[in-house]
Amino acid sequence: MSLLVVGSVALDSVEPPFGKADDVLGGSATFFSASASHFAPVQLVGVVGDDYPMGQLDALAKRGVDLAGLERATGRSFRWRGRYRHDLNSAETLETHLGVFSHFDPKIPKQFRNARFVFLGNIDPRLQLSVLKQVEKKPEFVACDTMNFWIESRRPDLLALLEHVDVLMVNDGEARQLTDQANLLKAARWILERGPKFVVIKKGEHGAYMFHGRHVFFAPAFPLEEVFDPTGAGDSFAGGFMGYLARSGTVDQEHLRRAVVYGSAMGSFAVEKFSIERLLDLEMAEIVARVKEFRQLTAFEEELPR
Amino acid sequence: MSLLVVGSVALDSVEPPFGKADDVLGGSATFFSASASHFAPVQLVGVVGDDYPMGQLDALAKRGVDLAGLERATGRSFRWRGRYRHDLNSAETLETHLGVFSHFDPKIPKQFRNARFVFLGNIDPRLQLSVLKQVEKKPEFVACDTMNFWIESRRPDLLALLEHVDVLMVNDGEARQLTDQANLLKAARWILERGPKFVVIKKGEHGAYMFHGRHVFFAPAFPLEEVFDPTGAGDSFAGGFMGYLARSGTVDQEHLRRAVVYGSAMGSFAVEKFSIERLLDLEMAEIVARVKEFRQLTAFEEELPR
Repeated sequence: MSLLVVGSVALDSVEPPFGKADDVLGGSATFFSASASHFAPVQLVGVVGDDYPMGQLDALAKRGVDLAGLERATGRSFRWRGRYRHDLNSAETLETHLGVFSHFDPKIPKQFRNARFVFLGNIDPRLQLSVLKQVEKKPEFVACDTMNFWIESRRPDLLALLEHVDVLMVNDGEARQLTDQANLLKAARWILERGPKFVVIKKGEHGAYMFHGRHVFFAPAFPLEEVFDPTGAGDSFAGGFMGYLARSGTVDQEHLRRAVVYGSAMGSFAVEKFSIERLLDLEMAEIVARVKEFRQLTAFEEELPR
Repeated sequence: MSLLVVGSVALDSVEPPFGKADDVLGGSATFFSASASHFAPVQLVGVVGDDYPMGQLDALAKRGVDLAGLERATGRSFRWRGRYRHDLNSAETLETHLGVFSHFDPKIPKQFRNARFVFLGNIDPRLQLSVLKQVEKKPEFVACDTMNFWIESRRPDLLALLEHVDVLMVNDGEARQLTDQANLLKAARWILERGPKFVVIKKGEHGAYMFHGRHVFFAPAFPLEEVFDPTGAGDSFAGGFMGYLARSGTVDQEHLRRAVVYGSAMGSFAVEKFSIERLLDLEMAEIVARVKEFRQLTAFEEELPR
């Protein structure tokens, strides 16, 4: 089924512990699309400046990402520069230039307005809500991300948005900040009381929780010998998660559990190379093999002690 | 089968975020025994001073812990005082008084020398090796713990000990310090090359890995709404792990996986109350129910995306 993503399309300059890359494809919608396109056709809505290397997006278009909603505005593209030291879980931001992204006002092309699955990447919650209003029929499943900046500066808008969202996907720090609860179970319950039927709390290298009613599901991060560049892992997770759901067309708990695992698998691939490189050269057989490995990672047979 | 533990028997004074306890039962051998005794008879070797509240150990004796190896020396018992702030994963040590523990020279009573399962709690690796030498027949399965202090000050002894150990159980910080590898897969491989067939790396609230050859198993920590007092969680984990193995008598990979889950379950109970309180009032039905919950926590059915 159709999967709509709204978010940033940026140029990243990253310095992981080994290597360095300048002005490579980045942004939440970019990572999301590269990941989700392995599962379902993706419709991207975003904005870039007139300096963006449009040719490089051909790789996404070839993977089935419809770029008709990518606005090209006069000005500079969103640029982010960051580095990672020993703690690969948190980037140190060196520079952020919002450029044309600071005036982003997402317009959903007519042919995207019947989207059944929607991912609202990390933008102003008022814009996230405006996107939902532009979708003609209530979508089957809406996921949204947010960040500390919006939690602080747009709290009422964010809470209003949550009433229209099926799953909130945030990291542990954001969940704690939003809810003022240190304990993640309590944080999740707080969120579940405000609209979303599901909450996914991502803990980076420590895995991800999904909460649904009284149910808790956990998927570890895939243990990798080399985490090359952690940038985009969260949006690649979201892409795998929503892509899997859009492909299956079913949003019950069993499918949501699998979606978390597919998300974790996609996040684990994303960090193996710079930018979306690994997501582009990836094949379904590799994804399926990694999901099998995920299953082995936590598999045990129950047996009462004799 | 018989399970021998050698380690500290102490008096703890702890200040978790809520509440406060003074001079309660603590120490690695104490937590280990309280936990393991749910699965198998335990033989404890340790030392206390003449100030130790021996009557309080009756609760352990009633649970099948043989205290014949608990030496009573002239002097003060090992005392530890610590507190936890927001990060329940790491205690802040306020005071440590080793007392009679500083001259601990474990003597294994004759009737304990045929132990088939041995847990070497966190003591000087030279003493850990001396314990193994006192066991008459090579045990079926030996687990050992250690800490930063021994990794720094007794490195050659620790490496010599590893050659005689089946599983090293350490936390992530200790694994990194021992191996000088930031990546846990690489750290585990380093350790596996030095003797142990299995390595368990505990990450506190972030769960535990077990490595065996090229296999990796992961058990999340059980998500609790209230972590009351984290003291002793690691030794309670070890008690559940070794207790389960001693009870089953089988040490293949399948049983080791289950042992990690039983260990995680026991660790999750230990933190619900002060000291060994929760471990003492625990029933097997509760343990089995929690193991089932662990299974639900990570359970998903594989299914190829359609």
